[in-house]
Amino acid sequence: MAAPLRVGLIGTGRIGQVHAMSVVSHPGTTLHRVADVFAEGAKTTAKSFGGTATDNPDELFSAGDVDMLIIASPTSTHIDLIEKAIDAGIPALCEKPIDLDIQRVDTLRDKANSTSVPIALGFNRRFDPHFADLRARVKAGHIGTLEQLLITSRDPAPASTDYLAVSGGIFRDMTIHDFDMARYFVPEIVSVSAQGFNQFSKDIKGLGDYDATAVALRGSNDELVLISNSRHAAHGFDQRLEAFGSEGMMRVENITDTNVTHYTSSHVEAKGPYQNFFLERYMDSYRNELDEFVKKIHGEESNSPTFEDGRMALVLANAATESAATGTTVAVSGR
Amino acid sequence: MAAPLRVGLIGTGRIGQVHAMSVVSHPGTTLHRVADVFAEGAKTTAKSFGGTATDNPDELFSAGDVDMLIIASPTSTHIDLIEKAIDAGIPALCEKPIDLDIQRVDTLRDKANSTSVPIALGFNRRFDPHFADLRARVKAGHIGTLEQLLITSRDPAPASTDYLAVSGGIFRDMTIHDFDMARYFVPEIVSVSAQGFNQFSKDIKGLGDYDATAVALRGSNDELVLISNSRHAAHGFDQRLEAFGSEGMMRVENITDTNVTHYTSSHVEAKGPYQNFFLERYMDSYRNELDEFVKKIHGEESNSPTFEDGRMALVLANAATESAATGTTVAVSGR
Amino acid sequence: MAAPLRVGLIGTGRIGQVHAMSVVSHPGTTLHRVADVFAEGAKTTAKSFGGTATDNPDELFSAGDVDMLIIASPTSTHIDLIEKAIDAGIPALCEKPIDLDIQRVDTLRDKANSTSVPIALGFNRRFDPHFADLRARVKAGHIGTLEQLLITSRDPAPASTDYLAVSGGIFRDMTIHDFDMARYFVPEIVSVSAQGFNQFSKDIKGLGDYDATAVALRGSNDELVLISNSRHAAHGFDQRLEAFGSEGMMRVENITDTNVTHYTSSHVEAKGPYQNFFLERYMDSYRNELDEFVKKIHGEESNSPTFEDGRMALVLANAATESAATGTTVAVSGR
Amino acid sequence: MAAPLRVGLIGTGRIGQVHAMSVVSHPGTTLHRVADVFAEGAKTTAKSFGGTATDNPDELFSAGDVDMLIIASPTSTHIDLIEKAIDAGIPALCEKPIDLDIQRVDTLRDKANSTSVPIALGFNRRFDPHFADLRARVKAGHIGTLEQLLITSRDPAPASTDYLAVSGGIFRDMTIHDFDMARYFVPEIVSVSAQGFNQFSKDIKGLGDYDATAVALRGSNDELVLISNSRHAAHGFDQRLEAFGSEGMMRVENITDTNVTHYTSSHVEAKGPYQNFFLERYMDSYRNELDEFVKKIHGEESNSPTFEDGRMALVLANAATESAATGTTVAVSGR
Repeated sequence: MAAPLRVGLIGTGRIGQVHAMSVVSHPGTTLHRVADVFAEGAKTTAKSFGGTATDNPDELFSAGDVDMLIIASPTSTHIDLIEKAIDAGIPALCEKPIDLDIQRVDTLRDKANSTSVPIALGFNRRFDPHFADLRARVKAGHIGTLEQLLITSRDPAPASTDYLAVSGGIFRDMTIHDFDMARYFVPEIVSVSAQGFNQFSKDIKGLGDYDATAVALRGSNDELVLISNSRHAAHGFDQRLEAFGSEGMMRVENITDTNVTHYTSSHVEAKGPYQNFFLERYMDSYRNELDEFVKKIHGEESNSPTFEDGRMALVLANAATESAATGTTVAVSGR
Repeated sequence: MAAPLRVGLIGTGRIGQVHAMSVVSHPGTTLHRVADVFAEGAKTTAKSFGGTATDNPDELFSAGDVDMLIIASPTSTHIDLIEKAIDAGIPALCEKPIDLDIQRVDTLRDKANSTSVPIALGFNRRFDPHFADLRARVKAGHIGTLEQLLITSRDPAPASTDYLAVSGGIFRDMTIHDFDMARYFVPEIVSVSAQGFNQFSKDIKGLGDYDATAVALRGSNDELVLISNSRHAAHGFDQRLEAFGSEGMMRVENITDTNVTHYTSSHVEAKGPYQNFFLERYMDSYRNELDEFVKKIHGEESNSPTFEDGRMALVLANAATESAATGTTVAVSGR
Repeated sequence: MAAPLRVGLIGTGRIGQVHAMSVVSHPGTTLHRVADVFAEGAKTTAKSFGGTATDNPDELFSAGDVDMLIIASPTSTHIDLIEKAIDAGIPALCEKPIDLDIQRVDTLRDKANSTSVPIALGFNRRFDPHFADLRARVKAGHIGTLEQLLITSRDPAPASTDYLAVSGGIFRDMTIHDFDMARYFVPEIVSVSAQGFNQFSKDIKGLGDYDATAVALRGSNDELVLISNSRHAAHGFDQRLEAFGSEGMMRVENITDTNVTHYTSSHVEAKGPYQNFFLERYMDSYRNELDEFVKKIHGEESNSPTFEDGRMALVLANAATESAATGTTVAVSGR
Repeated sequence: MAAPLRVGLIGTGRIGQVHAMSVVSHPGTTLHRVADVFAEGAKTTAKSFGGTATDNPDELFSAGDVDMLIIASPTSTHIDLIEKAIDAGIPALCEKPIDLDIQRVDTLRDKANSTSVPIALGFNRRFDPHFADLRARVKAGHIGTLEQLLITSRDPAPASTDYLAVSGGIFRDMTIHDFDMARYFVPEIVSVSAQGFNQFSKDIKGLGDYDATAVALRGSNDELVLISNSRHAAHGFDQRLEAFGSEGMMRVENITDTNVTHYTSSHVEAKGPYQNFFLERYMDSYRNELDEFVKKIHGEESNSPTFEDGRMALVLANAATESAATGTTVAVSGR
């Protein structure tokens, strides 16, 4: 067995913590260096999970002892850090999105697409065991030819208004996960028809943003991908998938902590409420995401989303934003 | 199409009403005569559903215009009425049980088993569409060789103490349905091991009866039939079946009025409570029971339970009563 | 109890037969006259279900003994027959759609909306027990304020190409049911965004029609109604409803004949395939539809869809057709 | 945080491997010493999971650096090793059963019950997240007073005939898990009524053993615990629990790897087959079992089954063996 990869983690917010846990529990990785411009964050994380703390991310590129980077710092730093990773020849797994500005993304596009340094985008939902199983069985032909993919994606509750104000809007911040999921099944999307709604939040409306969306994507073989979003869901994190094909259908419903069902005089067959936080629902997918990227680094076959996957999700988010604003279907190209 | 069979109904209590409804809605039967020693009951029923009312059941045997009898009068009258039906050559569908006294049943046994007049016992659960579908698929080999049958049967709430006092005890009154269901799958039972429990009702305990039971039957091929009963169930009428075989399993769960599911912050995937009354749950089975008996009268293939089926259910109930009292397994014979 | 309403049935095709069955089994109606320009159809239906046959529908208006009409003749005859019914003062339940041409519909609009003669459109799905239960509970506030309604509606297999050629296109022929269902929950729709797809049928593509659709409707309170259709579904008639609100969610899934589940080495918890034909799935709803119209005739509270409901479904279908053709969201008005 | 407990593992067979994995992944334990009289087994396990290997279990008692023992060696060694652990003052988690011979168990009973050294029996199913959640909610009163507990427990396939020949019989080898589960809900059992069946295996019949069982236990408050077992199940490891109480019911059904459901023309709502091996089904419970024992060692509140729990499960297994042989209900005492 090869020596564990020494991981350099940049960013120690909520997602950074999740990655630190994945790194610690993965047999092929160790947490070696932890960077955050807020020195306290780096120190606390290093103390809990191991590694050396610094408030200077550049140290991770120059130290010469980092085998792999995980970039979990603010979105605005992603482009710069990915480029440095490429230049330093260090494989990097970067949280989504690459950037909110497609023009900035495109400045790095050619370099990122042509480099031999493994770069991956953090679309962790691809690695959820339930969704991954469904996709594997669709690919294996269990429903014939895929014709329709229905994605339901509702958050338990909106993030803070402060966060939402700089999020880039619901399509770039929330639906972007669904755009990547869409492309995981239907890589080549040709048009986007989107609508935004203001259904419950005056705060979000005040930001000029939507609190719910509906998006119809058309694939190059006339596949339909239908996405519905809401920024809230009383019954918990609502993450479902339905694949419909020429010979049948497959679905993933929501996940409960246990499968205890309850029967009383007021209701029967009731389960406990759904997991209410993305960390519960997607903890396994973060672990599998890391595992998949480790395979990529070792030259094995891997499903890690590429830089181009990250770019295309943003292209679709931008097209959706435009479609919702103009009331027209927007053509897109590329795959 | 033959002229509809002219039905004579004896007994206009709750079950009599159910039969009247089935007769009226069946294209091959009409309600022709209605008898009840309580004249008012007969009159009211005839007014609602048709036919001529009388307070003298004997009129139905002598009138010469009754093609089929439905006997829904008190248990103590069953033996006598079945015998009269045989003597009069009129096919009769009699409610369960034949009688609470096996010796009285045996006085009619030879005659009932040898007559060519169609006689059927009202074990309506055989005709529940769900149970019937399960049995048909078990017979068709969908689970290989049947090894175990698990019957859950819980009433929503106990009948009145007055009724229970003359019911013959839980094994003869309630479990008897399950004994017939057992024999529908495993006709030849060789032993009975039963226990009675007093779990919630002081009234029932005061009657010297049980409010819950557990019964294990052994079939001649070492099949196991496991029955659990309770006289109450907060979540509604609890009627389930599980057939386990060498190549798999089949189950029937409880039935809800609609399949609406509800998702809130306290529970998810919840259905409405189960149907709370045997008439809702088994209305279809009463209709199908009648239909099956009409087929028998017309000489077609039919699953109608025979007099001997009725007798064997009582034999098993008696064996269970003895087993529960003595703490020993009781051997039975016959099929 | 009032004397049963004497029904005049016009049209004895597949749907006409369904209505005849409902009429016969409803205690408050009898089949009195049956008309079809194809005399044989009228005769056969009258023989099976009762009533006098004629090949001249006009007889039903002039006879003076018809209390209620059911119009199940070809779409092109609907406008004329509804008008005659109004003029004759005979309540009429007319199959959907009123007409494929909105201009023809509008010639009758004022008259139909102002008459005191009960007129109802045959959107039977409103009366499906499952959908009706869901709607009642949504109206009762069980999910708070309704924000999103997701309608999945897939036929088991396409109708004949001959039929489809004159159907008016998928939005007017198939989605029209879903447009009415949308308005049953969100009466006031303000815009339609629709897309059509050619996913599997060259025949349908050859007709210039779509075999699948996706439609997003916007309600006046920014509700979202999302519809997805397909002209085929290997797993059977796929008719589902999901209502999402501020305090939870409610769903109706598909219906199986029995609730037997099967467990083997290759799959577990499997039910039999879904009902494969609209008559199985919606038989109850046709019965309830008739019952609701009988209530309306008797001046009782009733949910029967009105002429205007029928008109609005066509308005939405037309808007969807335009939206799919132009790639733009189409505004609609009225409720 | 305290230093991790240094674990000494005795026995490196299949269950020993499972414990090694749990120890390695638990933050509060490290694998320090590994003993197996088959030296190769100890070496291989130590190489994979860490620690020093030995073929002499006595070294673990004398070394002075073992904080906790896990005993996973053959059943016949358990009594001796538990006694040594008590004498050495080393907490020990011992696999079930304590011994197949109640007289041998009773020689250690007083000592084991009076020692302050933490001793636990490996009834891991108590710690299955699903069963544990159900029990916690029953204890919290979610179904009122517990009246009936139904345990279904079927293995995917029989163990080897060689193993079964020395297993002590199905009640002591397989049902013993269910007896402990029964006592987890109903600690005081007063009688046992059991039956054994030979349903499919000539090999097992040849051993004079049963391949299926049914057991009814009676609790001191007239609770019923009903257990059904089979040594095979085509649909996978079949481990279910139903708790029925005065105010409702709770159930745990079987677990599938993912919640993907499949819909085709032959079946709908089908999941993949159940997990087919106890390690998949109960991996989490082994982890939680260790965690609970670590708490016990640290003096925290703990649900670890005691020596007496292990003894009572054997008492019930013996009573069941006698009941099945004699056809009588057998009284038991103690709790």
